[in-house]
Amino acid sequence: MAQKPSIPKGTRDFAPSEVQKRNYIFDIVRKRFETFGFQPIETPSFENSETLMGKYGDEGDRLIFKILNSGDFLSKVDEGTYEAKNFSLITPRISEKALRYDLTVPFARYVVMHQNEIDFPFKRYQIQPVWRADRPQKGRFREFYQCDADVVGANSLLQEVELVQLYDAVFTDLKLEGVTIKLNNRKILSGIAEVIGAQDLLIDFTVALDKLDKIGVDGVKKEMKERGLTDEAISKVEPLFHLSGSNIEQLNALDTLLKESEIGSKGVDELRFIIESVADSGLKSAILSIDVTLARGLNYYTGAILEVAAPSGVKMGSIGGGGRYDDLTGIFGLKDVSGVGISFGLDRIYLVLEELGLFPEAIDQSLQVLCLNFGEKESLRALKLINQLRDAGIKADIYPSDTKIQKQFKYANNRNVPYVILIGEQELENGEFVVKNMTQGSQETHLLSNPDNFIQSLQLN
Amino acid sequence: MAQKPSIPKGTRDFAPSEVQKRNYIFDIVRKRFETFGFQPIETPSFENSETLMGKYGDEGDRLIFKILNSGDFLSKVDEGTYEAKNFSLITPRISEKALRYDLTVPFARYVVMHQNEIDFPFKRYQIQPVWRADRPQKGRFREFYQCDADVVGANSLLQEVELVQLYDAVFTDLKLEGVTIKLNNRKILSGIAEVIGAQDLLIDFTVALDKLDKIGVDGVKKEMKERGLTDEAISKVEPLFHLSGSNIEQLNALDTLLKESEIGSKGVDELRFIIESVADSGLKSAILSIDVTLARGLNYYTGAILEVAAPSGVKMGSIGGGGRYDDLTGIFGLKDVSGVGISFGLDRIYLVLEELGLFPEAIDQSLQVLCLNFGEKESLRALKLINQLRDAGIKADIYPSDTKIQKQFKYANNRNVPYVILIGEQELENGEFVVKNMTQGSQETHLLSNPDNFIQSLQLN
Repeated sequence: MAQKPSIPKGTRDFAPSEVQKRNYIFDIVRKRFETFGFQPIETPSFENSETLMGKYGDEGDRLIFKILNSGDFLSKVDEGTYEAKNFSLITPRISEKALRYDLTVPFARYVVMHQNEIDFPFKRYQIQPVWRADRPQKGRFREFYQCDADVVGANSLLQEVELVQLYDAVFTDLKLEGVTIKLNNRKILSGIAEVIGAQDLLIDFTVALDKLDKIGVDGVKKEMKERGLTDEAISKVEPLFHLSGSNIEQLNALDTLLKESEIGSKGVDELRFIIESVADSGLKSAILSIDVTLARGLNYYTGAILEVAAPSGVKMGSIGGGGRYDDLTGIFGLKDVSGVGISFGLDRIYLVLEELGLFPEAIDQSLQVLCLNFGEKESLRALKLINQLRDAGIKADIYPSDTKIQKQFKYANNRNVPYVILIGEQELENGEFVVKNMTQGSQETHLLSNPDNFIQSLQLN
Repeated sequence: MAQKPSIPKGTRDFAPSEVQKRNYIFDIVRKRFETFGFQPIETPSFENSETLMGKYGDEGDRLIFKILNSGDFLSKVDEGTYEAKNFSLITPRISEKALRYDLTVPFARYVVMHQNEIDFPFKRYQIQPVWRADRPQKGRFREFYQCDADVVGANSLLQEVELVQLYDAVFTDLKLEGVTIKLNNRKILSGIAEVIGAQDLLIDFTVALDKLDKIGVDGVKKEMKERGLTDEAISKVEPLFHLSGSNIEQLNALDTLLKESEIGSKGVDELRFIIESVADSGLKSAILSIDVTLARGLNYYTGAILEVAAPSGVKMGSIGGGGRYDDLTGIFGLKDVSGVGISFGLDRIYLVLEELGLFPEAIDQSLQVLCLNFGEKESLRALKLINQLRDAGIKADIYPSDTKIQKQFKYANNRNVPYVILIGEQELENGEFVVKNMTQGSQETHLLSNPDNFIQSLQLN
């Protein structure tokens, strides 16, 4: 019996208009990456398990999709292991490959494997799907694209300045104006922890601080206390809750707060350089804003931390993020490779563009011209015309059979085709074709021997 | 200890210039698909196992990559099954998902699942990777892209005509002129088997005939005999070995040979329609040629069978193929959906373009302009200029640190950058920038306040 087909939970089919919209975003991002000097790489969908396992913490390891070895996979399981019937002992014996979980670890692996072919500094971008065995929920999928740009082998803060400008350029090109690029620095967080005497509680402190938006000042204080910060420390941290004013005013306040901490002062200097350099060039449409509560993957980042928020009024988590990390490739034996990178959250950007109606109107137009089919002789002549249109870059087609004209018109309507061409017996005899404008209802007649005027009018559209 | 990283056998990393070349092919194919009225869809990388298993024969099933269930996958294995220690019994209990093996079965699944949203006839294209646990060898990978265009829900032979034109258009756009599009029809093969009284041996007969190129007339006769064809049948088949002349001459010979067979005559008529219609429009650069030995996936195709060979002189298997099939979606319970489609062999097309030097010269040029870095003040001014270039669509970058100029020039040489910009202390003072043409060695000076002439000269390149 035939199965009723379905797809695995957390995965998606993309219909034509969805693919077109996703490609619209990818194309703009890709083009901007390239004008900024980034080069594309691609890595395999699955990696050797040992490349991925242990890189994302225990929780990450659990969420990695493992691929069953081909053939008699049980042959590599010894008797004792088999009898123990313990899935975590058996897994590494029956699975040697796993689907990639992100693009960062494969990138690190790539850099180490290809270090002799790469000219450093290496600016790479990568747009590929990743897979996570996460519990699916609204907006969270088991297969989704990541879109990363990273520079490795360059310590200069110029990179951070450029990455802010890159965010601004991409979102401006997407017509998504008014995004906020939030900026922080891990050294500032370390400095604060130092100044309040809570170096050992750096992570607890930042995790709590990161929630300021959600739980407010009192909530954060409560959580800090629960996480072991002293009352004295918490009161010293108080000014952070009330940082306000321009970026420069905030920088000055941080300068005062952190003047006793060497690392904290360095963080303020870095932040100041980025802020001032960006202000000097100006941004096209984005807003750059200091946010000392921003932590993201704290254990990972060592310098700048970036996050992008959708324009105010749009309820959506961050649509991009990134930062500076000092040791990308150490896990694979290559030391001292500093990197800085950003990523774009494709699925959320898609939703924001959809919500704000920012996709180009014509993106849903999968066909610009449909020629109706009045029979074999007419359709063969029509095909010649249609191929002339196609050669001019126009999306054009002919209805495949000479079914009822009403049905053919209905198809044209469903496909949202703006121009329908008619070549019936009479037109063929006269060497003409009729163009019907489907939105206005008007008709025009052209000579089959001279379709150029019609082609030009389409190209102007 | 750090691991020495590697990638799974049969998989590939793609370096920047490889990605650019692959995207060059994809972009041309995609653009042509769209002007021919095809719409893109995408399906998940993994499907439910029952969607894929049993669709590709026993050998295919073995080559499908299975994904291990997350969490305690052993919990679904009952005691008896576990004790049997038989991997093929255990597999379906511990793996419910599998990586897609081709794009055809997922497409059939898509059409059935979304039949109410689709306007038929549905012309879809799909360009995505597939995975096969095949033994890797030269040119055969475990992860590779397929690139398919299919029309479903249209019986008209106009589709076949258009698909021939589509092949011609794509290969012409790729500047790969002189490919041969071989054409056959399953009905002709059935007709021949009927005429020689070997209907029951249709597959044996065609498998042997398919080898004519490789093993010659005597070899084919010998194999036909071994496969059970009578001497009488083989002598009746003799004319096929010597078909020659123009397509029309071959059609006439086939007409005579098959006049007693209804299905055979129908096949000749179909072939004639396609040949004549294509000849009427003319092809840009491809050659259309009847090849009655062409069989491909015989059990699958029911009408036209297509295959594309690289231009003569290039040793390469087929670079594309396809045909008409009468029942795409029956496996998922939707009857009477006829389809016809073609695919492009990306990896082989890539190799042919590389061999013939047909990739655009500039494709390796990942950077058009590099600005050297003479220090903080100079580099910040340079960044403004670089961003003006970027906004004009030029791939431009600034060296990230003010390291030795010699080292920066070496980087520019390695990256094959045609123009290097110098803004040192003196230039900054004069409000100028110097452009060095790296191929000619010449230099020009422009005003920082007016980079337009330089930008325009780049855009003309």
